[in-house]
Amino acid sequence: MNDQTVLLGHGSGGVMMKRIIDQVFAASYGSEELAQGNDAAVLPAPEPGQRLAFSTDTFVVTPHFFPGGNIGRLAVCGTVNDVATAGAQVKYLSVGMVLEEGFPMDQLLEICQTIKETADEAGVHVVTGDTKVVNRGHGDGIYINTAGVGLIPQGRNLSGSLCQPGDAILLSGTLGDHGITIMSTRENLSFSANIKSDAAPLNHLIAGVLEAAPDVRCFRDPTRGGIASTLNELASQSNTDMVISEDAIPVNPAVMGACEMLGYDILQVANEGKMVCVCPQNQAQAALEAMRANPYGLDAAIIGHVEASRPDRGNKVFLETAFGTRRIVDMLVGEQLPRIC
Amino acid sequence: MNDQTVLLGHGSGGVMMKRIIDQVFAASYGSEELAQGNDAAVLPAPEPGQRLAFSTDTFVVTPHFFPGGNIGRLAVCGTVNDVATAGAQVKYLSVGMVLEEGFPMDQLLEICQTIKETADEAGVHVVTGDTKVVNRGHGDGIYINTAGVGLIPQGRNLSGSLCQPGDAILLSGTLGDHGITIMSTRENLSFSANIKSDAAPLNHLIAGVLEAAPDVRCFRDPTRGGIASTLNELASQSNTDMVISEDAIPVNPAVMGACEMLGYDILQVANEGKMVCVCPQNQAQAALEAMRANPYGLDAAIIGHVEASRPDRGNKVFLETAFGTRRIVDMLVGEQLPRIC
Repeated sequence: MNDQTVLLGHGSGGVMMKRIIDQVFAASYGSEELAQGNDAAVLPAPEPGQRLAFSTDTFVVTPHFFPGGNIGRLAVCGTVNDVATAGAQVKYLSVGMVLEEGFPMDQLLEICQTIKETADEAGVHVVTGDTKVVNRGHGDGIYINTAGVGLIPQGRNLSGSLCQPGDAILLSGTLGDHGITIMSTRENLSFSANIKSDAAPLNHLIAGVLEAAPDVRCFRDPTRGGIASTLNELASQSNTDMVISEDAIPVNPAVMGACEMLGYDILQVANEGKMVCVCPQNQAQAALEAMRANPYGLDAAIIGHVEASRPDRGNKVFLETAFGTRRIVDMLVGEQLPRIC
Repeated sequence: MNDQTVLLGHGSGGVMMKRIIDQVFAASYGSEELAQGNDAAVLPAPEPGQRLAFSTDTFVVTPHFFPGGNIGRLAVCGTVNDVATAGAQVKYLSVGMVLEEGFPMDQLLEICQTIKETADEAGVHVVTGDTKVVNRGHGDGIYINTAGVGLIPQGRNLSGSLCQPGDAILLSGTLGDHGITIMSTRENLSFSANIKSDAAPLNHLIAGVLEAAPDVRCFRDPTRGGIASTLNELASQSNTDMVISEDAIPVNPAVMGACEMLGYDILQVANEGKMVCVCPQNQAQAALEAMRANPYGLDAAIIGHVEASRPDRGNKVFLETAFGTRRIVDMLVGEQLPRIC
């Protein structure tokens, strides 16, 4: 690409837009559908009875590059993971770019190549896209929206509302890696050379768990707001309490150290490559082994269980501490780390 | 909503985000799927054989409010129209918001209510969404991404690549209204009280045309880059030339006057509620009548035809002028009106 930076003309709908599409987007993550050049991608008919799963996410993270990935990897993983939580086979992605005039073209190319690599890893295709350019000073380099479509096999029904007292709560790995990585990169803090974002596509991990534990109630990825938000949402959806055990929660010691130093609650820090899973107790061990069989689930653990709520106090999430006490885990109030994803 | 403006905490994943979702987004355009509160919307199985149409668009227009609509109306119409060009029944929308800290809450509410009204008019449902908040000075109030999913009946195949020499080219109404409206609103020019954006959902118009003229080759909406880009794209996709007649093109005189004064080529000005349709000559009259039967197609016209390309000069678009000469219609080079949609 001869243009060194993004120019307003790249969003014009004319010759320059065709150039950036051909030389950057299609060159990086082109597909048969994109190459057809129509306004909508036409996708094969699902098998009879397959329902659709549909989700979207916009990514505004800063910095755009960080240990463990970049905004392109996040943009694929975030939507793939959301669609996969429905128990769907994730198939198709859209990619909508909002570029700021002056954004370096070599960075855009690197991000687009990462989108391709991550989509390949997840086994999804980018089939449709859009490019907008905003004037200098009216964006922040690059924002990426992705939307994803997946196919849900007949008979599979997962929902946060299905959690039942007695169910086990599993977590696929260590908490807080993404949030602490972004914060320390942004602020030039160096807690440890070992902290990096966990951004990862978890659709294959989910598929493995569903095969081993077919009665899973739900999956949910604890992104913004951390596992505290996730568990409070599930408690509210299913009218239950959630109890997790401090000792059982996998955490990278360097990440925990950073949280303690900065006064963050690790339960509220964002993750981009972790999955919470609720399943019947009698399938918990099988689900755990399936998680651990996946490269992104090596540190998976059973971290707690679901309890009936007491009608007089609403749905609560409790942390059983190492001292044997219970404390209430609240949803994040206010803002902790803006623009974490 | 007690909050007067958008705050960083509204994108936190915590309590404040739940509040803006419940009180603004769900209150405006909530649906059964949104209410379920899962990470992905689960949508019914298509009929056997129905293929999917999938498209996305991000909207960064300024100003956010303009005669004829606002960014919310554009965000629904743009994606509905793109999905409809595949001959699909447009069913589901995602809405991803990027809000700037400090954006007035009353404006956000008005935009969300317009999204609901426009979605209702088009007969589509918002089934999934996302909210991000960026710091003051790193956005421009509001950017909206929508992605859309539609269902294509068996046996329907539309594509820009199917245009054939002899086919008729139709246009559903006057050119340039959206682009000139945005430009004159932005620059405080008042050409005429009669100019307003044409932003409109055209899925019902397309359905009417397909019923009357089942062998339509393709639809394409001439947005950024105007009809000049659209016809050049179709010529290139189908390896043909396109010839349109200056006299036949419907234009609002006030819009034409503004274009002449400002030195814009009306063929390159953006539209947000117009559709180009290419069909066999023997169905052109039926297609025209179907367009005119729709409130958004009252000014529809047959504006030209497709010709074979001369192999020595590539695919061209020609304008036959009122003087009987032909001039080449090029794609926009550079940028004409940034952030038109």
